Order: sequence, then structure tokens, then C-alpha cells
Amino acid sequence: MVNGAIVADLICTAPPLDVRSQSAVQARIDDILRPTGALARLDELVVWLAGVQATPRPAITAPTAMIFAADHGVAAEGVSAYPAEVTASMMRAFDEGVSSISAMARVAGATVSAVDVGVGLPTGNIAVEAAMSHDRFEEAFIAGRDAIAPLDTDLLIIGEMGIGNTTAAAAVVGCLLGLDDSVGAGTGVSGAALARKRLIVAEAVARVDSQTEPIEVLRQLGGLELAAMAGALVESRLRSIPVLLDGFVVSAAALAVARSAPDALVHCWAAHRSREPGHAAALEALDMTPLLELDMALGEGSGAMAALPLVKMACALVSEVPTFAEFFAS
Amino acid sequence: MVNGAIVADLICTAPPLDVRSQSAVQARIDDILRPTGALARLDELVVWLAGVQATPRPAITAPTAMIFAADHGVAAEGVSAYPAEVTASMMRAFDEGVSSISAMARVAGATVSAVDVGVGLPTGNIAVEAAMSHDRFEEAFIAGRDAIAPLDTDLLIIGEMGIGNTTAAAAVVGCLLGLDDSVGAGTGVSGAALARKRLIVAEAVARVDSQTEPIEVLRQLGGLELAAMAGALVESRLRSIPVLLDGFVVSAAALAVARSAPDALVHCWAAHRSREPGHAAALEALDMTPLLELDMALGEGSGAMAALPLVKMACALVSEVPTFAEFFAS
Repeated sequence: MVNGAIVADLICTAPPLDVRSQSAVQARIDDILRPTGALARLDELVVWLAGVQATPRPAITAPTAMIFAADHGVAAEGVSAYPAEVTASMMRAFDEGVSSISAMARVAGATVSAVDVGVGLPTGNIAVEAAMSHDRFEEAFIAGRDAIAPLDTDLLIIGEMGIGNTTAAAAVVGCLLGLDDSVGAGTGVSGAALARKRLIVAEAVARVDSQTEPIEVLRQLGGLELAAMAGALVESRLRSIPVLLDGFVVSAAALAVARSAPDALVHCWAAHRSREPGHAAALEALDMTPLLELDMALGEGSGAMAALPLVKMACALVSEVPTFAEFFAS
Repeated sequence: MVNGAIVADLICTAPPLDVRSQSAVQARIDDILRPTGALARLDELVVWLAGVQATPRPAITAPTAMIFAADHGVAAEGVSAYPAEVTASMMRAFDEGVSSISAMARVAGATVSAVDVGVGLPTGNIAVEAAMSHDRFEEAFIAGRDAIAPLDTDLLIIGEMGIGNTTAAAAVVGCLLGLDDSVGAGTGVSGAALARKRLIVAEAVARVDSQTEPIEVLRQLGGLELAAMAGALVESRLRSIPVLLDGFVVSAAALAVARSAPDALVHCWAAHRSREPGHAAALEALDMTPLLELDMALGEGSGAMAALPLVKMACALVSEVPTFAEFFAS
């Protein structure tokens, strides 16, 4: 069985950030041929990356996006603007390279894979029952770990696809943070459908004791792709793979992991803030400042893919620009 | 002589945005394989680009950055953290491809050129005299136009380099908008030097009547690279070349052009908001929402280069992703 204690035990074995590499990068940054501090958050980004990659010359040469996809029993409640069958269709789009993130990845020079952790096999309806049994949760969590383990990548984007999953994410974030306004339009519901979505989330959250430990909240209110993302976040932490977090649904899984162990997400950076209201709350709780705020609300990992070039640039700005001393000696 | 009336006359001859292409792109966007409106500002960006490029399939295949560089008499007042000689050094860095924007451009797939419009030939000290004579202003304005005319590019980044130029920009923006808090740290001045910078800007602005027409304000308080950028903005407008505006200094030149003729800057999009306080005011006056807000304050065109991949992605998201109908027919 996977629970918060097991996640905490796993994270305990993870390597710390390499502060020596971070100091080396910061020292170089302070001397580089530009006004000190002029790059602000891009400097912070590359210092972080140096700590995760454990090198004074962090680089991104093989970035990859991993999209976890699954279906949700709660979709039958009419909480999305699209039918559940769209999840399966999008799997074909990912495979054929014609999804939105695929197009963005070609610009950013990244690869994209989608992992089916329950497409066509919906979870329980969270309004009335646990999303997953303990066994099913564990299976998805392990699938998430197993998807990361063989990767040869120096930057991972974690994204998701699943009709109904902003409802699940709103329930998870609402429960973990004690919010009653974590619900947004998701794929674009409004009016009565949005009111219905709010009601469903309120019912789901009311079903779960507010003192429940975060990983159990994820099992109760989340979804198979959220469980898999939790596993992927743990596995990437163990392997010191830097992760760019995508949007609201990813943040729900991330929040559950972060609340299970200190330093669980030191390998993660928030790529963007979507227009889902719960996302802002989750990012604040994670103490993460996103790189982008473009009012996007697509999922798939698209917000993180949008930010990837900034991370590449942050690396190039340290590795390819000389210090004042190097420049004037040349 | 170049003045506001001449700029207005030039802009009158510029082609309008192609609303038919914009409508065609918007219609396609509404049917694309993703939730309607999920890309928000990236959708707006590509609709804008379609209007400027006058095609329903906007694309960015040969983006280029043009950096206008010059020196400022006001630098002798100690308003910068760096000596005026750094402007000339940076010209060498641009030529050698080792500047910050050069490193970013390699990530973004763009070219970079720097145009010397007065390096080593400083303007007058704006605290006590006009920055440029009418002749010198015109010469720089024409140099800016001439730098753009031969370009074969489908997206232009306009950037700048010039020790002392955030002082000039603060004076221009302060005068045009009637602000008394347009001064920021620039290259990183603080304490007494920052107080001195504020004083110099206040003296400069006090020298110029607040009813002075915007192009004359640019001559009085700006600099040679600001004059050249004004010319570049006009020329790119006449040639329907879309422009990504960089930071505070660029916004000062842009504001003077925008206030001279309606629709003068319909070919421009704000790439980022820097941490210079006057930049936020200028963007608001230009009614532009920047793509990025990363607290950068480097100049060189670096903020616009940081945003370039987003524009490329916005294009790919229309041209490479099928509509629902196309997808389900395949």
C-alpha cells in the first residue's frame, strides 16, 4: 500500500540539492558580462537547475514531456464541456504528434510521450465514493514511477490528460488547503454546468475528513493520472531529474507529495500559472513563483512546454556568455 | 526635419492590419483540437500576427533582433553603475556573438545585429540641454529606418544598448506621461547614485514643456538609439514587419511614436515587462499587455528574445494542430 509514510520514506533516501554547484553557478553569474542581477528570475532558475543536476554547468540537451492520461467516473456528472471519449482521442493525437503540446515541443526541441494509466477505465465517482481502491492507487503510482525510471533526460515536463480531471484536482486542492473556491471552468464549463461542478466538488470534499493525510486524499479525490504523477514526482526526485510542473491538475498531485515529506519537490519548478483559481492557491501553498502567467488552461503539459525555452536560455546565459574578466582578456 | 507631423504623415501611408486573415485564423482557432479559448493570450498573439503578416497562416521562419546602440552625455553625471565605455565593449560582444541576447538567440533560432548610431559620440547632457540637434535627431531616425529597410525577416525584435539610456528613457516617459516616478535602478544604481539619477531626470523633464509634441520630447530628452528606434518602428510599420518590443528604453521610443499617430504601433506586441517602474507605466499608456513578467532589466532586446519562442509556438499551435473535424476524418 502506498501512503504518506511510504512517500516520506522514499523521499528520505533522495539526494539533497548540490549546494556547491549552486554556489559555483551563482559566483559565475555575479561576474558575467551584464549588469549584476539583471536577469533576476532566469538567474534563480539556473542556480536551481545546477543544484538538481549537480553540476556547475547545468544544461538541457534532452528534455522530455510525459503526459499521464486516465478517465474519471465523475465525468458522468457532466462536469466537463467534453465527453469522456475525448481522453482516448487525445491519446491518438499524442501518438500521432498532432496535439497542441506536440506542436509546441517541436519549437522547443523536446520529445513527448503519453502514458495510459486508465483511459477507458474510469475511477469511482468522487462525489459518492473513493476514486480508487488502495490497490488501484498503488498500481497507478507505480506506473508513474516506472514511466520515469528508464528515461534518459535532463529535464522532465509532467503533464496530464483526462476529461473530468480539473474536478478531481479542485477536490484534492480544496480538501488539502481547506478552500471552498478551488473550482474553475476547466475545459470551459459555465452557467449550470459550472454550478454542478462546484456542487460535485463540495460533495466530494465533504466526504473526506479534513485531517486525512495527503496521499490518502489523492486516493479518495484524485484520479489515476494524479496517482501516476505523484509516483513520477517521487521517482524523478530520487533520480535528481529536474521537473517543470505544468498546470492545475499537476499541482494537485504535487501538493499531495509536498505535504507528505519536506524537500519532496526541491527538484521542481512551476512553469506557469493557469487561469484555474485553484492553481494560484496550490502554487502559493507550494511556495512556487511560476515563470509564465498567460491565462492558459489547456493541460497536456502545454504550460510547461511554453516555459521550456526560458530554462534553456537560462542555461545558455551562464554557459555561453563570458565573465567580464574572460571578455576583456580575449 | 523629423517631427510628429512627419511621423503621422508616414504612418498614414502604412497598410492596415489584414482583418480578413485575422478572421480566418480566429475561425480556425475556434475549431482546433483543444478546448475553445484554452490558449488565451497565445491565440490573441497569432491573430495579431496574421493581421500584420497579412496571411491566414502566420509563421516565423527568419526572426531577427536589431540592437541600436549609442552613448549619452548624461552618463557623465554618474547615473549608471557602469562607465560609458561599456557601450563600445558591448558592441564587440554583439559582433562576437557572446552577449546575453546572442546566447538566447541561439536557443530561439534568431539572428542578432547591432547598429552603431552614436557609440563614442555622446548626446548632450539632457539635464541642461537638448540631447540632439534637429539634424542629429533626423540622422539617427533615418539610420533606424535604413537599418530595417533591407531586412528579410518575418519577426523583428527591437533592442538597445547605451550606458545612461534608462535615464533618458525615464525622462522621456516621465515627460510624456506626466509622471514623477519613472526612474528605476537601470543597470543597478542605488543609494546616492539613484537619488542623483532621480534629480537629473527631474531637471531634464522640468526643462521641457509638458505640452511639447512627442517626437520633440524624444529629441530633447532621448538619445540617438531612441531616435533610431523610432525610425525603425516607423519603417517596420510601413513594411508590415511584426515587432516584439523589448523593455523600458524601447517603450520610451515606442510611446513617442504611438502618441504621434493613431495605429502607429499596431504591428507591435509587448514582449515583457521589466522591473523598471517607468516600463509598467509606458506599457499601460500603450495599452499593451506583456507576454512575460520576469523582473528582468538587461536591455539588449533580451526580454523580447525570451518571448520569441512563445510567438513561434503560437504559430505552430495554429498551423500544426488539426481541427476536430480534420482529426476525426483522419
